[in-house]
Amino acid sequence: MEESPGGPSQKKVVAVVGGGLVGALNACFFAKRGFDVELFETREDIRQAKIVRGRSINLALSHRGRQALKHVGMEEKIVSQGIPMHARMIHSLNGKQSPIPYGKKGQAKRENNRLVIYLSSYPVKLMCRVNFVFLRSDGSEEQVEADLIVGCDGAFSAIRKQFLRRSRFNYSQTYIPHGYMELTMPPINGEFAMKPNYLHIWPRNTFMMIALPNLDKTFTCTLFMPFEEFEKITTGDEVIEFFQKYFPDAIPLIGVDALKRDYFRLPAQAMVSVKCSPYHIGSKCVLMGDAAHAVVPFYGQGMNAGFEDCIVFDEIMEQFNEDFSAVLPEYTRVRVPDDHAIADLAMYNYIEMRAHVNSKWFLFRKHIDNLLHFLMPKTIIPLYTMVTFTRTRYHEAVARWHWQDRVINRGLLFSATGALLGGSFLLIKNPPDINKLLVPAEKMWSRLVALRTS
Amino acid sequence: MEESPGGPSQKKVVAVVGGGLVGALNACFFAKRGFDVELFETREDIRQAKIVRGRSINLALSHRGRQALKHVGMEEKIVSQGIPMHARMIHSLNGKQSPIPYGKKGQAKRENNRLVIYLSSYPVKLMCRVNFVFLRSDGSEEQVEADLIVGCDGAFSAIRKQFLRRSRFNYSQTYIPHGYMELTMPPINGEFAMKPNYLHIWPRNTFMMIALPNLDKTFTCTLFMPFEEFEKITTGDEVIEFFQKYFPDAIPLIGVDALKRDYFRLPAQAMVSVKCSPYHIGSKCVLMGDAAHAVVPFYGQGMNAGFEDCIVFDEIMEQFNEDFSAVLPEYTRVRVPDDHAIADLAMYNYIEMRAHVNSKWFLFRKHIDNLLHFLMPKTIIPLYTMVTFTRTRYHEAVARWHWQDRVINRGLLFSATGALLGGSFLLIKNPPDINKLLVPAEKMWSRLVALRTS
Repeated sequence: MEESPGGPSQKKVVAVVGGGLVGALNACFFAKRGFDVELFETREDIRQAKIVRGRSINLALSHRGRQALKHVGMEEKIVSQGIPMHARMIHSLNGKQSPIPYGKKGQAKRENNRLVIYLSSYPVKLMCRVNFVFLRSDGSEEQVEADLIVGCDGAFSAIRKQFLRRSRFNYSQTYIPHGYMELTMPPINGEFAMKPNYLHIWPRNTFMMIALPNLDKTFTCTLFMPFEEFEKITTGDEVIEFFQKYFPDAIPLIGVDALKRDYFRLPAQAMVSVKCSPYHIGSKCVLMGDAAHAVVPFYGQGMNAGFEDCIVFDEIMEQFNEDFSAVLPEYTRVRVPDDHAIADLAMYNYIEMRAHVNSKWFLFRKHIDNLLHFLMPKTIIPLYTMVTFTRTRYHEAVARWHWQDRVINRGLLFSATGALLGGSFLLIKNPPDINKLLVPAEKMWSRLVALRTS
Repeated sequence: MEESPGGPSQKKVVAVVGGGLVGALNACFFAKRGFDVELFETREDIRQAKIVRGRSINLALSHRGRQALKHVGMEEKIVSQGIPMHARMIHSLNGKQSPIPYGKKGQAKRENNRLVIYLSSYPVKLMCRVNFVFLRSDGSEEQVEADLIVGCDGAFSAIRKQFLRRSRFNYSQTYIPHGYMELTMPPINGEFAMKPNYLHIWPRNTFMMIALPNLDKTFTCTLFMPFEEFEKITTGDEVIEFFQKYFPDAIPLIGVDALKRDYFRLPAQAMVSVKCSPYHIGSKCVLMGDAAHAVVPFYGQGMNAGFEDCIVFDEIMEQFNEDFSAVLPEYTRVRVPDDHAIADLAMYNYIEMRAHVNSKWFLFRKHIDNLLHFLMPKTIIPLYTMVTFTRTRYHEAVARWHWQDRVINRGLLFSATGALLGGSFLLIKNPPDINKLLVPAEKMWSRLVALRTS
């Protein structure tokens, strides 16, 4: 398994396009299998660079991602650089903070771009600043020859554009109406301005702010808001007025001057959800990570799903003895439904985080689910737990979640039916008035039907 | 309205890209408004060509399309070239034929590509064989300058590709697992081989054949089948065996030899559904027809929706006094939900035509709907009628359809509730056994819930 069958002179060449998180990790997976790996990245080598350009974003590393890192011996190194998160912390409008535990051991989180530095202890040729030429033979650009091309070049993948030219390639890109903006919350007297081991959330229906801790004791606050709302705010005073109205407790922590200044530093950024299928062309090319399935960032699974791609591909490589012509179609068959499921879940959470986290019903159901999980830990497992703390396939987690919901709602349905019929026996001791029965019956049923279908 | 405000010397130039059905019609709409219209088409001018290349397909022209043609004075000329269809004709496996009327006056249908010939009586410059260069200034290709670029260049639109390069452009292309293949049914003794004024359908669950009459007394049969089924059939004998099993009555009408030969003439063709938003860039460019919303061909609305685009755009031009900077965003706002609705309906019919046309329940509901439409013609209007015989906005037709379904099902719900409670009174004269009540109650409710949500 460590050596390719034909010996070093006949090593197959794998070209990994994109040296981001998934590309870098994937390069290590292929290197570990003994392939001749070339990693293509247009940005300069950040191990040598003094200033790293490009955006940085806080990411949550959970079970799936850790399993992938473990495979190449990187788990502890990365986790030790992160800050564990044990719970969500909900900030109400009046400044009250209420923790909602995740129900299981915490997550670690980390910053972008560091992975490529650590992981290069594997024998990977880093081909910096090379324009990758694909399916083109006019001789005008450097050509790359490889036995397998792995497109890990992110949400706006150049490799995927070549897929789009072919027939029967299903593809969707959906921009959500919200943009995001990052603001920094500095340390206070050298310490975190808020409790560090939490994902801080300010849910405000149409918009939302979250804050995640950094190693330098700052928090990165991310404000999610429809673009049209961002555009309404045009002066520093309007920024303060807006925060006064919705996030008053954050103003002193970010600072009035910083807030007035930083709000206008960069325009709000767009968020896109990308789904496609198939992930492969013949036995030559495959898409992974954001290139195959960019998700909106509301389930904390973007990086984890990309890392899990590497394990899943590796497992199939093992199963089919590294025969690309069998591995690639199987990878599409196995992985597409899971990636589509997590893309949908992230979109679902986009609504849930803003709206429901606030609602009594949502909290009630969270408690019911956690209680049932406590009573029947093998039967009822909250969706969040399956997604974040297990490697249950995403689409199976979703199917199981719907099944659990049906079971729980059927329980309610039976109880309610009993109550209704019990009530009607009392009524009909005197001559029964059919309307009296029908009105509450119809009401109750439509409520239960709404529950079942919502 | 017939003259542009600044007189002929300051006429605004509109470049219509694509000389297919929608492009040709649209060119006439703009010419009628007095714009200087240039129509770009890479194929040669089919009015001069001896052999017209490209595929031809039978299309159904209904109310929306006719209204658009009427606007430029072409309705009668086109309709007289078509064959009216009054009903569907369902072919059972045993050869039995059962008509299902459309419930209203028939449709006309016509062949592709003829429109461009008739419509050029308007002053439109036809720019044949010009490569259209868009947003590119390297000087290597002929540049076109226009005040407005109208992309009517079909499902694989080159203009739309430019939209895809921009942020916040939502886009999806979905290929269905089915392909299609056309077979010709020749005349018998100079007459149509089957009754001509029908859409003939052979629904067979996973696959389906339809046949539409042509002016030369032939029928074009279109076989819809999953690609993998097409690929299973590799010899002439297997074709006959397959038709023997599923479409026995069609074999003598197409002819054994023709069937064996024509099945292998061309590979099965793919079908794609395309949705996107927005339809415009600034005040300079707009997408219409298949370029904006390719639909699968199962509601007979592809061309009609494209033609209606022209009317809707024209109505908005009137409303905003031909100010492109106001017209284009409004066109996106108004038209996107309708085009998405018809794309979804066509996809829904893709399933319905194959599966439900056969089922007793489907026929029962069709009868119920037609009966209710007869009793309450203003209140209950079958979806098919709204889509095909009115200009009710597509998304409103769908909303109304869902509303009607709720009303009808609620009617059923109340009747059933009454029956159930009536029944339970009888039961509880003797000591009531709660289980006896609960089981049928739960059964009935889940059936009704299934109906409501299906």
